Amino acid sequence: MLESLHARLPGKVSERAADLEQHSADETAALRRPPAAVVFATDRHDVVTALAWSQETRTPVIPYGAGTSAEGHIVPLGGEIALDLSGMDRVLAVCPEDFLAVAQPGVTRTALNRAVAGEGLLFPVDPGADASIGGMAATNASGTTTVRYGGMRSNVLALEAVLPGGKVIRCGRGVRKTSSGYDLKDLFVGSAGTLAVFTELTVALHPQPAHVHAQRLVFGTVAGAVAAATAMMASALPVARLELVDTLSMRAVNRHLGTDYPESPALFVEMHCSSEAALDSEAEEVAALAWDSGVLKVASARTAADRAALWSARHQLFFAVKALYPERRYLITDTAVPLSQVAEMVRVTEKEADALGLDVVIAGHVADGNVHTIVPVAPEQADRAREFSDLLVEHALSVGGTATGEHGIGVAKKKYLRLEHGDAVDVMTAVKAAIDPLGLLNPGKILDLPR
Amino acid sequence: MLESLHARLPGKVSERAADLEQHSADETAALRRPPAAVVFATDRHDVVTALAWSQETRTPVIPYGAGTSAEGHIVPLGGEIALDLSGMDRVLAVCPEDFLAVAQPGVTRTALNRAVAGEGLLFPVDPGADASIGGMAATNASGTTTVRYGGMRSNVLALEAVLPGGKVIRCGRGVRKTSSGYDLKDLFVGSAGTLAVFTELTVALHPQPAHVHAQRLVFGTVAGAVAAATAMMASALPVARLELVDTLSMRAVNRHLGTDYPESPALFVEMHCSSEAALDSEAEEVAALAWDSGVLKVASARTAADRAALWSARHQLFFAVKALYPERRYLITDTAVPLSQVAEMVRVTEKEADALGLDVVIAGHVADGNVHTIVPVAPEQADRAREFSDLLVEHALSVGGTATGEHGIGVAKKKYLRLEHGDAVDVMTAVKAAIDPLGLLNPGKILDLPR
Repeated sequence: MLESLHARLPGKVSERAADLEQHSADETAALRRPPAAVVFATDRHDVVTALAWSQETRTPVIPYGAGTSAEGHIVPLGGEIALDLSGMDRVLAVCPEDFLAVAQPGVTRTALNRAVAGEGLLFPVDPGADASIGGMAATNASGTTTVRYGGMRSNVLALEAVLPGGKVIRCGRGVRKTSSGYDLKDLFVGSAGTLAVFTELTVALHPQPAHVHAQRLVFGTVAGAVAAATAMMASALPVARLELVDTLSMRAVNRHLGTDYPESPALFVEMHCSSEAALDSEAEEVAALAWDSGVLKVASARTAADRAALWSARHQLFFAVKALYPERRYLITDTAVPLSQVAEMVRVTEKEADALGLDVVIAGHVADGNVHTIVPVAPEQADRAREFSDLLVEHALSVGGTATGEHGIGVAKKKYLRLEHGDAVDVMTAVKAAIDPLGLLNPGKILDLPR
Repeated sequence: MLESLHARLPGKVSERAADLEQHSADETAALRRPPAAVVFATDRHDVVTALAWSQETRTPVIPYGAGTSAEGHIVPLGGEIALDLSGMDRVLAVCPEDFLAVAQPGVTRTALNRAVAGEGLLFPVDPGADASIGGMAATNASGTTTVRYGGMRSNVLALEAVLPGGKVIRCGRGVRKTSSGYDLKDLFVGSAGTLAVFTELTVALHPQPAHVHAQRLVFGTVAGAVAAATAMMASALPVARLELVDTLSMRAVNRHLGTDYPESPALFVEMHCSSEAALDSEAEEVAALAWDSGVLKVASARTAADRAALWSARHQLFFAVKALYPERRYLITDTAVPLSQVAEMVRVTEKEADALGLDVVIAGHVADGNVHTIVPVAPEQADRAREFSDLLVEHALSVGGTATGEHGIGVAKKKYLRLEHGDAVDVMTAVKAAIDPLGLLNPGKILDLPR
């Protein structure tokens, strides 16, 4: 059967062990299984051909971007072809006057930003990893700047997508707003390759901020840090990043970097300001809000170099954990809760980690209520780590939150879908059945078709 | 058959002529037809009962909010029951620390704002009319503040919705971000009552701006005004409203209000600033950008009273047109185009209006490329008005825009759906068939089920 795939896509299909291996796992590495073959697509026609062949032979397909998913999204479950889009890596158009760009799915976010920086523009969604734009759309990625600029749903304006069987459609338009027909664009964003394969994305661009200042605010307690964060969100301050880091995170960073940061909960705040004149008053207002919430120490930074240094404790955290706990698997939880529930979420996290004997660090996007826990997991801790993750999700759901703020459901979180969404899962299943009745696109991810 | 409806919902079903009349048309008044009856729902159970009865008797239902739709969304096409949700008008919860509120669908946007203002918060989506929150979600409404705060898709976090037949589901969560399962929430927002009836909405709230300033900038040409608008969008200025008004609009306002505004294209700009210190430098920057684009005159306003006076020319426009052309129907076009296409769109609009002998004024949300034309239509002009609308949509689509930036497809714009979306319409139809196979919810709006 694979002979016919080779014949339809000569030179673009690989069964080499190294290629199969590379497409057998994502960042979680908890699941690992090679695909039957890898198709390296270089244009839309390759994708159409692959999906037509998929339908004719009833062979499922998994779209693959940069492989940085965190919940097993791109891991084969048995018999699938991996459809690698990383070779579709051209930025097709940059339209500065329209504040948009058109990119192929394999373009990484850093490549996209290099392509638009010269126009004074930026593509703001920053999930940490240098993910592909297509993959980011597939998971509705977000990150540190979402508080200001939104995530992928806000920043993907239109998609060209190939449906199971190979039909090409376009969803959305390259404009800032539309109320025209059903919003298929947002249905497809976050669908993790289970409804369609993206072959072109029209994304929004934003002006690079004129003036940026950053502050690190050290608190005695997480509750104080969250209170300050809430006050900032209630103000008119132009918050662009607002990150919470816990005591154990700061300790890990100090050990790894040899620094001497206070080992206490901290907020990392960044403002994108309209004018030099605003900088001083905004920085003062941040400090004032922080004093009202019991801040112990305020450090500020204005130049790019100083800001990079200030942010390093937050940005180096994952490396610090890896250095302190080498050769582990790293579970990263991803719940999001209403802002008023963040302090309690952190307390529950610390309590459960302690009860299960797990070392954890807690850090994340407090403004969005999406605070991650990083758990270095030794093999003998695997069951406890899973239980820990379940407990956090159950708690988050019980207070109105979500099982996954950014990473998506993938395989690992399928068990939470009905707990979170109840009967809406039946509507999701009906939509999947309507669009992919044969279950050819990334089967077993997010949800299952009824048998 | 209606007897069984009366029996299931005693005291809540009306066949009175006045009620039928009130539910027979929307703001366009181009189409008018009474429903078979009106159900006045006061709680979710009424909605469930009505939709269960609808399925049992195969009677279609049209959800009705405040009746301010503009494309015939709520006009019966024959035999439907109107399901009036205006009596479900309670704000159920205001959660200031979570920046969200929970409201029934019949709450109007002004009532919602009254409920949250005391907390220093606002619900920013402002489509002009005092529409219901449910109706605004159904059409993905936006308006003057979308440039800063987004439209309904950005501001509706979660929905409780009743499906055809009466099953209740919840879509989305009351958090700022989620990547959990398919985005049914955004599929339902903008679906105009054709997929589900909303019985509860969780909406995002924003801090009221601390400092606001407004400017009216008069230009010699539309091209100059658009160039200035583009420069503002490319800057770091905290633009919150950015409206374009044409020469004929200013003339109409002068005649109606007896004012003496320059009769020339103008931009109305509003900034929501973080600090007093920023105000001066931002106002100066706006003026500087405007001078670079050939502004003739700059007027500024800071106090609430002065800003209201400055904005009156924009806000009074529709009344001015109605006063100058009484007893007409008023066609309001709603195309949106990429920003670089706005000046040409205005030129095409003026040219076609002239060729068809129609008086028009042009004004709207230039930052979003969504500039409306208001056409007072005398009966003998009806065909020409329709042709005018068609020409504008065709032009907008040809340059990558959309047939409808805000108002939706309804009935009047169904003919454009395939021109705009191509084969994606088949996916929309498949989704509709999956969720409403009997075609019981607002049939004939947006699209048609295959026979």
